[in-house]
Parts: sequence; C-alpha cells; structure tokens
Amino acid sequence: MRINDRLKQYCNKKNSLVCVGLDVVPARFPESVRREKDPVFAFNRAIIDATCEYAAAYKPNLAFYEALGTQGIDALNKTMEYIPSDILTIGDAKRGDIGSTAEKYAEALFSMGFDLVTVNPYLGFDSVKPFIQDPQRGVFILCLTSNPSSQDFQYRRLDGKELYKTVAEKAVSWNSNDNIGLVAGATHPDELTGIRAIAPSLPFLIPGIGAQGGDLEASVKAGAGHSGDMALINSSRGIIYASDKHDFAAAAGKAAKQLRDAINQVRGT
Amino acid sequence: MRINDRLKQYCNKKNSLVCVGLDVVPARFPESVRREKDPVFAFNRAIIDATCEYAAAYKPNLAFYEALGTQGIDALNKTMEYIPSDILTIGDAKRGDIGSTAEKYAEALFSMGFDLVTVNPYLGFDSVKPFIQDPQRGVFILCLTSNPSSQDFQYRRLDGKELYKTVAEKAVSWNSNDNIGLVAGATHPDELTGIRAIAPSLPFLIPGIGAQGGDLEASVKAGAGHSGDMALINSSRGIIYASDKHDFAAAAGKAAKQLRDAINQVRGT
Repeated sequence: MRINDRLKQYCNKKNSLVCVGLDVVPARFPESVRREKDPVFAFNRAIIDATCEYAAAYKPNLAFYEALGTQGIDALNKTMEYIPSDILTIGDAKRGDIGSTAEKYAEALFSMGFDLVTVNPYLGFDSVKPFIQDPQRGVFILCLTSNPSSQDFQYRRLDGKELYKTVAEKAVSWNSNDNIGLVAGATHPDELTGIRAIAPSLPFLIPGIGAQGGDLEASVKAGAGHSGDMALINSSRGIIYASDKHDFAAAAGKAAKQLRDAINQVRGT
Repeated sequence: MRINDRLKQYCNKKNSLVCVGLDVVPARFPESVRREKDPVFAFNRAIIDATCEYAAAYKPNLAFYEALGTQGIDALNKTMEYIPSDILTIGDAKRGDIGSTAEKYAEALFSMGFDLVTVNPYLGFDSVKPFIQDPQRGVFILCLTSNPSSQDFQYRRLDGKELYKTVAEKAVSWNSNDNIGLVAGATHPDELTGIRAIAPSLPFLIPGIGAQGGDLEASVKAGAGHSGDMALINSSRGIIYASDKHDFAAAAGKAAKQLRDAINQVRGT
C-alpha cells in the first residue's frame, strides 16, 4: 500500500491524528529511568506502552539520539523494533544533500525501519528523489517550520510568492508516487490554510503545539483537510515530559489521550 | 584562535587549499581493504597517510557513515582521532533544525571533534546559532550547492534577489564570531564571483570539482579572495577513488598533490 494511503488508514483505524515526538533528553528522565542499563530505550518503551493506544505515529528526532553517540543510535534501533507495527514511524532527520549522497541518507534512515522521513528542500529535487523511489515509504518536506527564524527565508517572496508556497507547489509537482507530505508548523495557523489550498491532497506533519505555542484548533481545521485525516499533529515535550516524576509514563498517556480527544473534537470524529 | 583565522593559518602553513572528502563506499574499496576487520577505518587511515602532506582539511560526509550503521559511526570516530591535529576537520552533515534541536546536532557533531560543520540555512538563524557560539568552531552554510537541482530554489529571485545571494548576505550579518563560511559549488564559477563580492571576508568551501565537473581555475580565482587563502577546494571521489586497486592510497596521494599544485598555480603560490 502506498504510504500516503497507509497514513490515512492508520489514522482512521486508530481514530487519532496524534504523532508522539520521541525527543529524548536523559537529563529530563525520572531518576528511576536514569538508573536503568539503557535509560533511553527504557524511557521510550515506557512512553510507547503508555501512549500506543492514542498514537497514530511516533517521530524520533535523530538529533537527540546522535547527541548520545552510538549508544543513542543503539537505543533508537531498539525503539524502532519496539514500536507496534500498526503505528507509523517518522524519522525526523531533516536531511538534504546532493543526489548521490542523499541516496546514502535514504539508505541509512529506511534501513532503520522508518516509514517516513523529514527532508529539507533547499537543495531541490535531486536531494529528495532518493527518498521517494519506493511508494511504500515517503517524506515530509520542510515547508513552513515552527521556529521564529522561519521568517529569515521561508517568508521571503520568491518570484513574487513566498518561498514556502513555492516549496509546497514543487512538492505537489514531485508527488507522482503519492508519498510526499509537508511539514507546516502550528505556529502559523493562517498560513496553513494557504498551504492546504496549494496542496489539497498532501498529508501535513504539524509540529509546534504545546511548548512552542502553536494553535491546535486552527491547525487541525486547516491541516486535516476535507476528509479530516490529512494531518499528523505532533507533540513531543508536551507528552513525553508531561511529568518528570515516577508517574511520567501515565502522565504521557494522559497527555496523548487528551491531545487525541482535543483534535477529534475539532474535526468532529 | 578563532576558527576562520585558524583556517587561513593552516592553509598558509601547508601552502594548500585542498580539502579531501572522505565519502566512504565500501563497495569501491580494493579487495585487500575489504578483508580488513574495520574496512572503513583501514581505508581512511591509508588515505590519510597518503594525502596528509597535501591536505589542509578532511571532510567526512556523515551520510556515508550513517548508511553503515553504528559500525560506520565507530569507524568515523576512529578516523577523527587519526587525523593529524594540524589539519582541519569538517563534518559535512548539512544539518538544520529548530533552535532547541539544533543544539543537539551541534553537541553531536562537535563532540565528535569536528572543527567545522556544514549547515542548511532553510530554517534561518536560530537553526545556525547553536553552531556558532564557540569562536573556535564554526560552520559552512549552504549557499549555492553544486547539484543540478540547486536551480529549484536557490536561483529563484527572493524579493528581487536570488535566494543564494540573500543567504550569503544573512551569513555575513550573522558572522559576529568570525566563524561562518559558505558552501558554494565549483559548478557555478560565475556565481562564485558574485558571492565573493557579497561576502569578501568569509571562507568558502567549494565542492563540485572532479566527478561533478566544476571549473577549478575559475573557482580558485573567485573563491580564494585577494589574500588567496579564503577557500577550501574539496575533492572526494577524484582523490579517494583515484584507483580502485592495491595502489589506491598512492593514487590518492598523487591526486591530492596534483590538485594542490593546480590550485597553487592558479593562485600563484
């Protein structure tokens, strides 16, 4: 099954658009977890156990694992094996390189088992191409990111149109395998509507709610599309660090359930 | 010493602007190397031994190591330890993420020992900031890349000016610690002159000669600047795969020497 169809299928089966960001920071783990032999995997396992009922996807950001060296990568590999097969996995790596090198990044990430990965559009089509050869796997291309400095380039007008809109248009034109989506931050709710108009059939990965202050209701309305299943709403810190005490897993489960329900209320499911 | 000063010092001491790209592809290693216990490190060690006399910098591209899993990262770590201390190391990772995540990428890469890393500008200043806090380390920001698809966005006119020129201007304005440089491909020799005019005091990392067909003479003339020491000219495949036989290391040394001499002839040193 093509990945964009599978994404919708998983979201509908779970009745959830929740993506849980697994951005591991050992200093924020409860003491009991830090004493484990592999604290990162122990933390993720507990979070997954507590949230898997409510999650349509898990999204480890590679930076947090790479910062821990090869031990971090080992923990990520164990985490990937542990994630239930009916939940999507997104490798948030934001890679971008010339074609022959991008092939290696695609090989690295897909061999870890990710269904989807995030990629950076700055280098253009040949940097994205190796990631979209297999229709069963795909990408979310950075379009309008959730950070304040997205103003620096993404909002600049390119040949009369904002750069992020040009990226959205290109993404639509590249989507012959139906395995491209867009990253568009919840911190830009008005712009999300504009991006949805440019890319009516592309799934969105929407970060930026919670710690970053994005607008959930507006993001769901603009992002989920007419069918109501065209977006994944990511929360990382708001779920996995809902508590820093021994009840961290239960608190994460509760936060994931609350987010799922809040999203479903907006989209009426 | 500030990294951009150190870069010039190393280039002048060595009388070389050569950067050797360590883009390891085990399938291209000679049979004798593939039989080694750690073929990647064995290959790099032989290449370094043969080329260190002529190299001002080594540039491993992370993609090639990540594609080999944690064994690849282990081999990269060993390679980093092996590189002589009077030669710069550039982590070609092209990372870019929101501020709090970019901190983790900076931690990951600088803890591996890299003096400089490549970063992607698409997310703007807060994605670059964590990499430029320490004046002894720095970045090369992707400006105009060497691949054909650089046309997709980098050449588009942004508020009346090409995106890559806007990136160059921003990079100049962010360079308060004198530790920012630009990546500008040798496949665009005319544009290099324009970028040099915008950023007269920023070092350039110039990929794209050799396999990618870039113009060496024009790149050196435009890139090296008035002082003749403002650029690193990268060759990866042209040096490390100069031969795929048992003489691969000697052939790499010869290719590195030829490149150094060809560059020096253009810049008159």
